[in-house]
Amino acid sequence: MTTNHQFRLAARPVGTPKRTDWNYVEEPVRQPGDNEVLVRTLYLSLDPAMRGWMNEGKSYIPPVQIGEVMRAGGVGEVVASKHAGFKTGDHVYGTLGIQEYATLDGKALTKVDPSLAPLPTYLGTLGMPGFTAYFGLLDIGQPKPGETVVVSGAAGAVGTVVGQIAKIKGCRVVGIAGGREKCDYLVNDLGFDGAVDYKSEDVKKSLRQHCPKGVDVYFDNVGGDILDAVLTQLARNARIVICGAISQYNSTSGVKGPSNYMSLLVNRASMKGMVVFDYADRYPEAMREMGGWLKAGQLKSREDVVTGIETFPETLLKLFKGENTGKLVLKVS
Amino acid sequence: MTTNHQFRLAARPVGTPKRTDWNYVEEPVRQPGDNEVLVRTLYLSLDPAMRGWMNEGKSYIPPVQIGEVMRAGGVGEVVASKHAGFKTGDHVYGTLGIQEYATLDGKALTKVDPSLAPLPTYLGTLGMPGFTAYFGLLDIGQPKPGETVVVSGAAGAVGTVVGQIAKIKGCRVVGIAGGREKCDYLVNDLGFDGAVDYKSEDVKKSLRQHCPKGVDVYFDNVGGDILDAVLTQLARNARIVICGAISQYNSTSGVKGPSNYMSLLVNRASMKGMVVFDYADRYPEAMREMGGWLKAGQLKSREDVVTGIETFPETLLKLFKGENTGKLVLKVS
Repeated sequence: MTTNHQFRLAARPVGTPKRTDWNYVEEPVRQPGDNEVLVRTLYLSLDPAMRGWMNEGKSYIPPVQIGEVMRAGGVGEVVASKHAGFKTGDHVYGTLGIQEYATLDGKALTKVDPSLAPLPTYLGTLGMPGFTAYFGLLDIGQPKPGETVVVSGAAGAVGTVVGQIAKIKGCRVVGIAGGREKCDYLVNDLGFDGAVDYKSEDVKKSLRQHCPKGVDVYFDNVGGDILDAVLTQLARNARIVICGAISQYNSTSGVKGPSNYMSLLVNRASMKGMVVFDYADRYPEAMREMGGWLKAGQLKSREDVVTGIETFPETLLKLFKGENTGKLVLKVS
Repeated sequence: MTTNHQFRLAARPVGTPKRTDWNYVEEPVRQPGDNEVLVRTLYLSLDPAMRGWMNEGKSYIPPVQIGEVMRAGGVGEVVASKHAGFKTGDHVYGTLGIQEYATLDGKALTKVDPSLAPLPTYLGTLGMPGFTAYFGLLDIGQPKPGETVVVSGAAGAVGTVVGQIAKIKGCRVVGIAGGREKCDYLVNDLGFDGAVDYKSEDVKKSLRQHCPKGVDVYFDNVGGDILDAVLTQLARNARIVICGAISQYNSTSGVKGPSNYMSLLVNRASMKGMVVFDYADRYPEAMREMGGWLKAGQLKSREDVVTGIETFPETLLKLFKGENTGKLVLKVS
C-alpha cells in the first residue's frame, strides 16, 4: 500500500501564512472507483491566489475548508484508471492539491502532451497563469497596436505572458517588477520596452518617463501603492484589468483601496475584474494560439522550480517575497 | 453704468471652502463687443463639482485661477446683444459665473424656453445634472429591465434623475440618502422601490435587504464608506458609474480609496468614470427625451432655490452638508 503525503489546511492564516497553518500528514493512497483516475503528482502550481483560498468568506471560489487538502493545480502521471478516457502513463492537468497522489473523477482532468512542452509549462504559460494573461489582456484590456501597456508583477507567471502578448499585438510594453535583475530580464530577454524597479525607483516618476503618452492598458497583479501610482498616469479612456492584488493578500490591517481612483473619472477610464475560469470554454483557443507563439519563439516561458513537496509552506512564500522569476512550480520529488 | 457684483477666487481652499476663499467684488458691467452678448444672471447652478474646480492640478477641466470669477453654470436674460443669434429678452444657459452680469461670446450660450419648463429646471433636470444622470446611467451603467439600480446622493440633482430614469427603464431602484425626509421623498414622491438612510442605517445590511439579488448598476455620487458598502453587495457583472465623490472633496487627509475594490474581481464587475461634457453632441437627444418624460409626468424635477448672490459661499456648503433636496439653485436677487 502506497503512502500519500499531503498538506491539509489546519488554520486560517492571519497575515503571512506559516507552516503551522497546515498539517503535513500521510494516508494510504485511495484506489480509483468507477470513472476515477489515480494520478501521481509530478509538479504543483504555486499561485498568489492560493492565499485567498485560505480565507473564509464569499469569493469567486469556495474557500479550502479546515482539514481539506490544500487546493493547487498540478500535472501528474496516471498510475491507475477506471475512466475510459485515461490510461496508465498518460500525463494530465487537474486540481490535484498539495499531495503526492490524487484520486479524481476523470472529468476533472485534462490530458497534456509532454512532447509539445515541458510539463511545468502546463502550469505556467500553457496553464492557468497563461490563460489569465491571454484573456485578461485581450478580452478586458483590449490593447490596440501602438498603445502603451503596463503590467505589474511583470516578472511573474502572469506578468511575463501579459507583456509578451502585448508586444506580439504591437504595443509599447512597460513592466513593473522588484529588483534590477528582474527588470533586466524583462527588457533583455522578453523584449519589454521598459521596466520600472519599484524597489529602487519612484514608480510614478519612472512611469511618466517610460510612458510619455500615458498608460492605455494597465494589467494589475499587485494593488496597493503601485496601483495608485499607475492611476496618476492614465491616458484618456484607459482600461485597468484587475487580476490580483498580491501586495494586499497578507495585510492584517485591511486592504488599501486605490485612493487615486477618481482618475477613472478624469480620464474616462475603467477598471474591471476578471476570473480566468469564466473563459474555460475558450482555453483550447488560448492553448492553440500560445502554443504557436511558443513554438515560433515569440513567447518565452520560464519556470522557477523548487523541489520537495515538504518545502511547500516556505516555497509558497517566495511569491509574497517576490523571490521568483517566472512561474513558481513545486516539483514533488 | 450698471454695477456687476462678483465672487472671484481668492485662495485655494483647504478642506471645506470658507467665505474668505473668495473676494466679493464689484466692477462696471462690460458692454458686448462684436459677437458678444450681455446676460443678466437670473439663476446659478451650485454643484459639488465646483469644489474640484477650486483645486490646482490636472483634472477634466482647468482649475479656476486665483482672481478669476468663480465658474458656475447659470440661466439669464439677454440685456444687450451684438450676436446675430440672440436678442434682448432671450433666455439663455451658459457658464455665466457667480456674478450678476456676464459678457460672453454668443457661441458659449444656448437658448432656453421658459414656457416649456421653469428656468431653474434648465440648471437641473434639463441641464448638466440631468444630462449627467441620463448619459451616465444609460451609456455607462447600461441597466436592463428587471435589474437592480442603486444610486447614492439619491436626493440630489443627479441622483433624483438617475433613479427616475432607471424606473422608466423598468429597473428596481434603491436610493441612498441622508435622513428620513429625503428617503421618504424618494419612495413616496419619486417612486423609488426603496431608500437607505445612511445617517441612521447600516448601509451594507440595509442594501442586502433592499437588493436581495445584489446590485447590478451602482451610480456613485459620493465615494467613501458608501462606495465601499455597495461594493460588498454587487451582483455578478455589475457596473459602477463613477460620477463623483462628494464625501471626499473636502477631505484634508487624502481621498479614501475603495478598500473593497477586489469585489470587482470576485463579481467580474467594472467601475468606469464619466464626464458629461463628452456627450455634448448628444445633449439635444437627452433634452428631447427628458423633456418628454417631464411633460408626461414620468419625471419630476425639484429645485431647492436660495435667494441672494451674496449668500453664495454659505449656500454652496448646503451641498456638502447634505441640506438640499433636488437641484440646489442660487437665485441672484
